[in-house]
Amino acid sequence: MKAILLIGDGMADRPLKELNWKTPLETAEKPHMDKIARDGICGIMDPLSPGLPPGSDTATLALLGYDPFKVYSGRGALEAIGSGVNVPSGAVAFRCNFATVDDQLVILDRRAGRISNEDASKLAESLQKVKLKKFENVEFVFKNTVQHRAVLVLKGRSFSTAVSDSDPEKTGVKVLEVKPTAKTVEAEFTAHVLNELLRQFHGILKDHPVNKDRVKRGLLPANIVLCRGAGTIPNVKAISKIYNVKTACVGAVPLVRGVCRAAGMDLINVKGATGTPQTDYMAKAEATVRILKEYDFVLLHVKATDVASHDGNFKQKIEIIEKIDEMLEYLLNNIDLDSTYIAVTADHTTSCLTRDHEGDPVPLAIFGPHVRKDEVEKYDERSCARGGLNRIRGRDLMPILMNLIEKVKKFGA
Amino acid sequence: MKAILLIGDGMADRPLKELNWKTPLETAEKPHMDKIARDGICGIMDPLSPGLPPGSDTATLALLGYDPFKVYSGRGALEAIGSGVNVPSGAVAFRCNFATVDDQLVILDRRAGRISNEDASKLAESLQKVKLKKFENVEFVFKNTVQHRAVLVLKGRSFSTAVSDSDPEKTGVKVLEVKPTAKTVEAEFTAHVLNELLRQFHGILKDHPVNKDRVKRGLLPANIVLCRGAGTIPNVKAISKIYNVKTACVGAVPLVRGVCRAAGMDLINVKGATGTPQTDYMAKAEATVRILKEYDFVLLHVKATDVASHDGNFKQKIEIIEKIDEMLEYLLNNIDLDSTYIAVTADHTTSCLTRDHEGDPVPLAIFGPHVRKDEVEKYDERSCARGGLNRIRGRDLMPILMNLIEKVKKFGA
Repeated sequence: MKAILLIGDGMADRPLKELNWKTPLETAEKPHMDKIARDGICGIMDPLSPGLPPGSDTATLALLGYDPFKVYSGRGALEAIGSGVNVPSGAVAFRCNFATVDDQLVILDRRAGRISNEDASKLAESLQKVKLKKFENVEFVFKNTVQHRAVLVLKGRSFSTAVSDSDPEKTGVKVLEVKPTAKTVEAEFTAHVLNELLRQFHGILKDHPVNKDRVKRGLLPANIVLCRGAGTIPNVKAISKIYNVKTACVGAVPLVRGVCRAAGMDLINVKGATGTPQTDYMAKAEATVRILKEYDFVLLHVKATDVASHDGNFKQKIEIIEKIDEMLEYLLNNIDLDSTYIAVTADHTTSCLTRDHEGDPVPLAIFGPHVRKDEVEKYDERSCARGGLNRIRGRDLMPILMNLIEKVKKFGA
Repeated sequence: MKAILLIGDGMADRPLKELNWKTPLETAEKPHMDKIARDGICGIMDPLSPGLPPGSDTATLALLGYDPFKVYSGRGALEAIGSGVNVPSGAVAFRCNFATVDDQLVILDRRAGRISNEDASKLAESLQKVKLKKFENVEFVFKNTVQHRAVLVLKGRSFSTAVSDSDPEKTGVKVLEVKPTAKTVEAEFTAHVLNELLRQFHGILKDHPVNKDRVKRGLLPANIVLCRGAGTIPNVKAISKIYNVKTACVGAVPLVRGVCRAAGMDLINVKGATGTPQTDYMAKAEATVRILKEYDFVLLHVKATDVASHDGNFKQKIEIIEKIDEMLEYLLNNIDLDSTYIAVTADHTTSCLTRDHEGDPVPLAIFGPHVRKDEVEKYDERSCARGGLNRIRGRDLMPILMNLIEKVKKFGA
C-alpha cells in the first residue's frame, strides 16, 4: 500500500468578485481533481488552527504530522538544508539576500536587480573563501540559491538564534548592525561573528570584478549581503522511523524540501522542476510514478499556485490548477489504484485579493480503495466542506493516511 | 434525568466490496438505531485522535471522559480489576496465559490447548497456595479468567511496571526470563520476585494431577504460566465524583469492566452475558432498564461486534448489529423517554477486511428530549458524518451527555 500527498501551495482561495464570487478552484476545469473528490472522502482542514495564516514551512511540518507550535525553529535552517547545505547541531542558519547599497550603506535595492544565478554563483564562490581568523574553530557555508537569494550557516562553535537581522526589509534605510536579542554568551558571540563576516563580505563585494562588470552593463551591483531569520533545524523524529515507511519529496522549493529533509525524507531532483509557474509539471508527475515503486509515501509539491496568488493573478492561478489537474490525470492513469491512496490539498489559503496567506481552511480529498466515499462531487473549498471528513487539523492528515496504508500502531489493547 | 451509553465494540467499519461497498452498519436492518439517529443528533467521533487505531481500553477511557494519553497505564491492571481482583496502590498486575512447554522450557502452545475453565480453576487454586517465603510481606493473587487466560497481581511491597515479559508471544522459543527495564530498586525487585514465583508455578504445574489427567485424555498439559503487560490502575477521579452521578457498567468483558471500575463505576453481573456472539443480548438490555431506576448513567457494552470483525465475518457482524437493535427496541419501549438520553456509538472501527482496529472515526447518535435534532435519517458511519455534532473527540462525549442530564457545572461566571 502506498500514499501520495499532492500539495498545491496556496491553492485554496477566497471568493473573488472578478470570478463572480467563485474561487479559482471553483472556476477551473479540473475533471481529475473532481474525480478524486467524487470517488473519495472530502473535508476541510485547518493547516495550523482556524484563522491562523500558516507559512509554507509551518504548514508542511503540520501536514507531515508534526506540531509546528512545538518544533518550528525558524525558516533559515529549513531553507539551508533544502538547498543541500548541512546545518549540524549547534549551528545556526540565515536567509540571505544579495543587495545593493550606496557608500553610506543605505539600501537601494534588496534584490540587487534580481541578479542572475550565474553572477550570484561567482560572487558566492569568492565569499566562501573568506577566512575568519579572529575566531577559533568557526566555520561558515555561504551558498546562493535562486537569483538574489542565498543561505549562510555558521558552525564549528555553539551559535545562537537569538540575534537580530541585518536586513531591515526595506529600501532607503541603512543596513542594520546585528545585535544579540538574549543576554547569553552564545548570542553575543553569534552577533559578533556575523557582523565581522558581513563586513568582510562587503569588502570583497564592493570591488568585485563581477560587480564592476554589472555596473558597466547598467545593472545594480550586488555589493552587500543581508541576513535574516536565524534558525536551527527542527528536532523531529523522521517519518520513516515513526511509521516504518520509505518517504520522498518531489518538489523544487528549497523551503519545502528543507522541511521534508528535516522529516528524514529523501529529496528527488527532477529536471525542469523550478518552483515557478514555468516548472515542468509533467516531469514531476512522471517522477512521482517512477519512484512510487521504491517509496511508500511521496509528497508531491507544486509551488506555482502560490506564486500566482501572491501576484494577484487569478487567471494564472486557474491555469496552474488546470495543469495540476493534468498531473493528477497522469497519476491516475499510471499507478495501481487498488493499492494507492492519493490525497489532494493545499498547505494554506493564499488570497489573490490580499495577495497574502490567509487563515481559512483548505479543501482536502482522499481517494483510494477503502475510504468511506462521500457525496461530494467537486474538489473546491466549499464542496469539500460538506464531505465525510468534516473539519480536521493539518496534523491529523498524516496519521489518517498512514492508517489507510496500515502503518499506524494501535494505542492500547 | 438519566443517560445510557450503548457501545458496540468495533461496530464501525470500512466499506466492503462484498457488501457492494457498504459497511455492515449500512447493510444491517436496524430500525431502532435509525430511529435514534432520525430523532436525535448525530456526528462522527475520533475515539482518540484521527487516524490512530485505539484499543478497547484506551477508547473506553476516552469515552468516559479521560485523556488516555495521560492516564493509560497498561492493560494488565484493567483486566485484573475487571476480573474482580484488587490492584491496590504500589501493586503491579500482569496478563497471564496457561501454556505448554517441553522439558527445555520451549513453548509448544501458548494456550495449553485452550484449556477449559474447569481445569484452569483447579490449577489456579493450587498456584494460589504458593508461599513466597524468601520475600518479606510480598503477596500475590493469581486468578484464571476465561480458558487459558489469567491475571496475576503482586502486592504488599512497592512493585514496578518496568519489567520485561516472560511471554515471548510465539511458539518454538524458550520462555523468557523477566528482566528489569529500568535501573530502580523496585524494578529489580519486581523481576526477581516474578521469576521466583513463575519458577515455583512451573514446579507445581508440571506434576499436577490435573495435567497428568489432561495428558491421559490426549490434551496438552498447562505446565507453565506466561506473563506480560505489567500495569497499574490508571490514576483517575471517579465519574461519580466528577459529575455527582451514580454510574454502572453492564458488560461482560474483563477489560472494559476494568476500565469502568477504574472510573469508579459499579459493575453489574448479568446472567448469560459472556462477551461473545452467543451472549444473552436481551438479558443485558433488561438489566439496563432495571438498574436505571437506581443509576444516573449506565454504560451498556456489547463485545460481539468486535469478535465478528476480528474473524472477518461480516455476515455475523450484521446479525449482531441487528441483535443490538433489538436491545435498543427494548430500551425504547421500557424507559421514560422524557427523562432519558441514549447515546449509540462504537469504541473504535474494526475492519472486517484487515481484521484489526482502524483509525477511522465512529458514528455517534444522541437521542433524548432536548437535543438539537438534525436531518440524519440512518445510523451508520457515513450518514452520521452529515449530522449536527460534526466531528468530535471521544473525550468530548461524556461532558456532552452529562451536560444534557444537567450535571456539568459552569466554568466561569
